[in-house]
Amino acid sequence: MSPHNPDLLNCSVATALEIIGEAWTFLILREAFFGSRRFEDFQKHLGIARNILTTRLNKLCDKGILERTPIKPGAKRHEYRLTPMGRDLHTILIALTQWGDRWLQLSEGAPVKFIDRTTGKEIADVTVLGQDRQKIKPRDLAMIPGPGATDETIKRLQLMAAAWEEKQRKGIGDK
Amino acid sequence: MSPHNPDLLNCSVATALEIIGEAWTFLILREAFFGSRRFEDFQKHLGIARNILTTRLNKLCDKGILERTPIKPGAKRHEYRLTPMGRDLHTILIALTQWGDRWLQLSEGAPVKFIDRTTGKEIADVTVLGQDRQKIKPRDLAMIPGPGATDETIKRLQLMAAAWEEKQRKGIGDK
Repeated sequence: MSPHNPDLLNCSVATALEIIGEAWTFLILREAFFGSRRFEDFQKHLGIARNILTTRLNKLCDKGILERTPIKPGAKRHEYRLTPMGRDLHTILIALTQWGDRWLQLSEGAPVKFIDRTTGKEIADVTVLGQDRQKIKPRDLAMIPGPGATDETIKRLQLMAAAWEEKQRKGIGDK
Repeated sequence: MSPHNPDLLNCSVATALEIIGEAWTFLILREAFFGSRRFEDFQKHLGIARNILTTRLNKLCDKGILERTPIKPGAKRHEYRLTPMGRDLHTILIALTQWGDRWLQLSEGAPVKFIDRTTGKEIADVTVLGQDRQKIKPRDLAMIPGPGATDETIKRLQLMAAAWEEKQRKGIGDK
């Protein structure tokens, strides 16, 4: 993918997707969270072509999501480990799994469940919460320009806010 | 992407990625959350080729993430709206944006911030919590087979659990 539109460049989602928005890349990360570290393990579990795997692993290392470390101190062979930046993707992988469980696999049920080792209980569905961990209804979620917003982004968000105001006004008018 | 490995088919992540694991698809969804509904709006904001946009929109409709509705009752022209299944992806898009903000755009700061309209305050970072909304340390997160687990998945999770036990044992031995 190569975004042609300058608006896209001012967006963390677009930038994040340039790195991890490719299906094999997500599955390689899933494997890393499953404990795979060696090229052969990734290859075996994913059934991915070796040249594709090499390209994807190199990219993930270049971008700081995985790092190459010797399999033993001083060894020539290396393995791939998640960096803190890579481990920080676990929320997204879990949220994506739970979304898949909710919408795609209704007949058999979830193949995998996530638990908290300290309690043995299943974790909650990953969701959007306020600073006090209160639930936020999707309709109460809004976007405002952050410190890195370009003029284009600010204009876009103003249009969204105006459209929302208009909808509220009409909604009240209808009643 | 076409996974060759049967293990992949027993995974909600892989199945979810078959639908939304493509960068343009994520960006189309982002546009839908930004309020775009018409083909021309998606086209303008994303700068995407019309044939690619058509293919992606059709796929999102087929999979139940977007739905086509007439722009007015009885109109021939239609627009694309998020279904409940599609709206349920907002957590993942927000988590991905926040991850991008944390790791990719340090110099300028976040282009967009998410707030709760009822309080005006910024939302919390999307994170993994227990049923009582307590924080769970990544090291306390574990996976167990769910009702839809295949023999292959069960074996895989047993190997992971064994590797974890071994690491704990060694960790204690080292001290």
